[in-house]
Amino acid sequence: MRLAIDAMGGDHAPDEIVKGAMLAAKEYPEIEFILVGDENKIKPIVGDHPQFEILHTTEKIEGTDSPVKAVRKKKQASMVLAINEVKEGHADAIISAGNTGALMTAGLFGVGRIKGIDRPGLAPTLPTLKESKGFLLVDAGSNMDAKPEHLLQYAIMGSIYSEKVLNIASPRVGLLNVGEEPGKGNELCKQTYKLLQAAPIHFIGNVESRDLLDGIADVVVCDGFSGNLVLKTMEGTGMSLFSLLKEKLTGSFFTKVIAGLLYPKLRGIKKQMDYSTYGGACLFGLRAPVIKAHGSSKASAIQSSIRQAKRFVDKNVVEMIEKKVQEIDIESIKEDYGE
Amino acid sequence: MRLAIDAMGGDHAPDEIVKGAMLAAKEYPEIEFILVGDENKIKPIVGDHPQFEILHTTEKIEGTDSPVKAVRKKKQASMVLAINEVKEGHADAIISAGNTGALMTAGLFGVGRIKGIDRPGLAPTLPTLKESKGFLLVDAGSNMDAKPEHLLQYAIMGSIYSEKVLNIASPRVGLLNVGEEPGKGNELCKQTYKLLQAAPIHFIGNVESRDLLDGIADVVVCDGFSGNLVLKTMEGTGMSLFSLLKEKLTGSFFTKVIAGLLYPKLRGIKKQMDYSTYGGACLFGLRAPVIKAHGSSKASAIQSSIRQAKRFVDKNVVEMIEKKVQEIDIESIKEDYGE
Repeated sequence: MRLAIDAMGGDHAPDEIVKGAMLAAKEYPEIEFILVGDENKIKPIVGDHPQFEILHTTEKIEGTDSPVKAVRKKKQASMVLAINEVKEGHADAIISAGNTGALMTAGLFGVGRIKGIDRPGLAPTLPTLKESKGFLLVDAGSNMDAKPEHLLQYAIMGSIYSEKVLNIASPRVGLLNVGEEPGKGNELCKQTYKLLQAAPIHFIGNVESRDLLDGIADVVVCDGFSGNLVLKTMEGTGMSLFSLLKEKLTGSFFTKVIAGLLYPKLRGIKKQMDYSTYGGACLFGLRAPVIKAHGSSKASAIQSSIRQAKRFVDKNVVEMIEKKVQEIDIESIKEDYGE
Repeated sequence: MRLAIDAMGGDHAPDEIVKGAMLAAKEYPEIEFILVGDENKIKPIVGDHPQFEILHTTEKIEGTDSPVKAVRKKKQASMVLAINEVKEGHADAIISAGNTGALMTAGLFGVGRIKGIDRPGLAPTLPTLKESKGFLLVDAGSNMDAKPEHLLQYAIMGSIYSEKVLNIASPRVGLLNVGEEPGKGNELCKQTYKLLQAAPIHFIGNVESRDLLDGIADVVVCDGFSGNLVLKTMEGTGMSLFSLLKEKLTGSFFTKVIAGLLYPKLRGIKKQMDYSTYGGACLFGLRAPVIKAHGSSKASAIQSSIRQAKRFVDKNVVEMIEKKVQEIDIESIKEDYGE
């Protein structure tokens, strides 16, 4: 297996990205890595390691760049060249911790869609607090004006990925909604509910956003606008609460001393909320695994993303999605429901 | 001023509802209260208090009832009769801590819409952590498939309410979105952004859900589906974190003892997150103030809702909304933007 890595994307690039790849290289001697980025910075870290090849470039896409423009204009950017490696068949998958929008754009145009998939969906694994297996959210921000068919495709892709890559037998797929009863929500939800009921998945019905952290479903399906709102509300609420907690607990000398004794516990909770430990977000629906590692990824998070990419490739998830999606006759499902 | 109160709605009805009204009666000797509910239970609490009148009924709408069906069939329910008091001009406003959906339905059909308002919007005040003034979220779940014009109307109503009832000069109105830059989000957001730019409000642009608790805006406008998702994600994340915190901190005898010393601080944070202290949620766009107190309201929360209703009536907010909405020529705004 050959893996292309955008060595220049993310807050701690290239050092932590390269170090993460080296950790993974030790774990998987069968993987060959193509590190795309500044050779002058990468070479001193990898040396002459036989599993590594460097594709030199100094151009990079910044986090603040406008995605579509950046992909179009920066043709020598590390992310774009890494995607090209997959496009030209030199690599089986690609990982980047860079600009999410740019990766979605470059992935869509460079790698291309799986036949039968209309729109790619971004799928991070978010934390659950009671059990630590997390849940997959599709779509977390790729497809803003999704249609019911897109959500059906997300449900199928999420279900296959969850089973094959995350090892969850018969993953529970839930539709993100504002109430549990069928018939709740907006038109998109009402139509999607019917499609999911008829789909070859373990559909458990509507799930509410307040129950997500409790692990109510393994795969949660929604349009990209809603998914992104929920993702950022969770992050924001968690961070605001932690900062308030810190402020209150260090308000007086007395509480400060006591709180100091509890810090290891608080750090533990914060770590449990940190979804970068679950690996990167997958861009579902493309002809090869495209994985977006968290922007703040350090070596161990990159290593997790590489494990994820390896299983993604080994289990033939892309082929399975292609096959399953083509078996489904959306028009006949719609007819069944009198659409 | 005369105020109709659904004495049988909410988890602590009728006792806490009636006690709340009695606290408010002392504060405002000029308000006359119509308590709608079971006289046998209400009379022993209010006695012969001159500000109170009891409208007896034993029927009530349950929290689990289907809203539309319940309003249609339970014609003698306390909530329906309370709405009727407003409809028939016997009361200036109504408060209920009962079934939210039923109150929206009964309010819409009983009280009716303000001329120029297409769809009512539910507007709770949610907590902010740094300053304690909170922010208004419109719509939090009334209008699932909102159109840009509806969001414009919410922005105008929220702005007037925020200024007149909450005493915020030139309230900052933000559009809930997945990014700050103009042009972000789904079609609804893109169209709404243009309308809000041209509206007679202090529009501050897109706001992200992760910044809401920090008080980034005074009024946050969105469709009812998104608003409800965000509201429940905040609640869910907060509650999950508190329960995890409790679990971790009471895991060993050592931390249990220490944590005990910090409990007053933790309770303080929990209280700060409890949005029932900000009063009830308003149902904007109806011809009289309809206020939904939180289901778990105790006497002091009911008292806050009554204060809110009083200002709502005293400041002529309904008339101001009607006037402002009619001044706005949505069609000409749309033409300006080449729609």
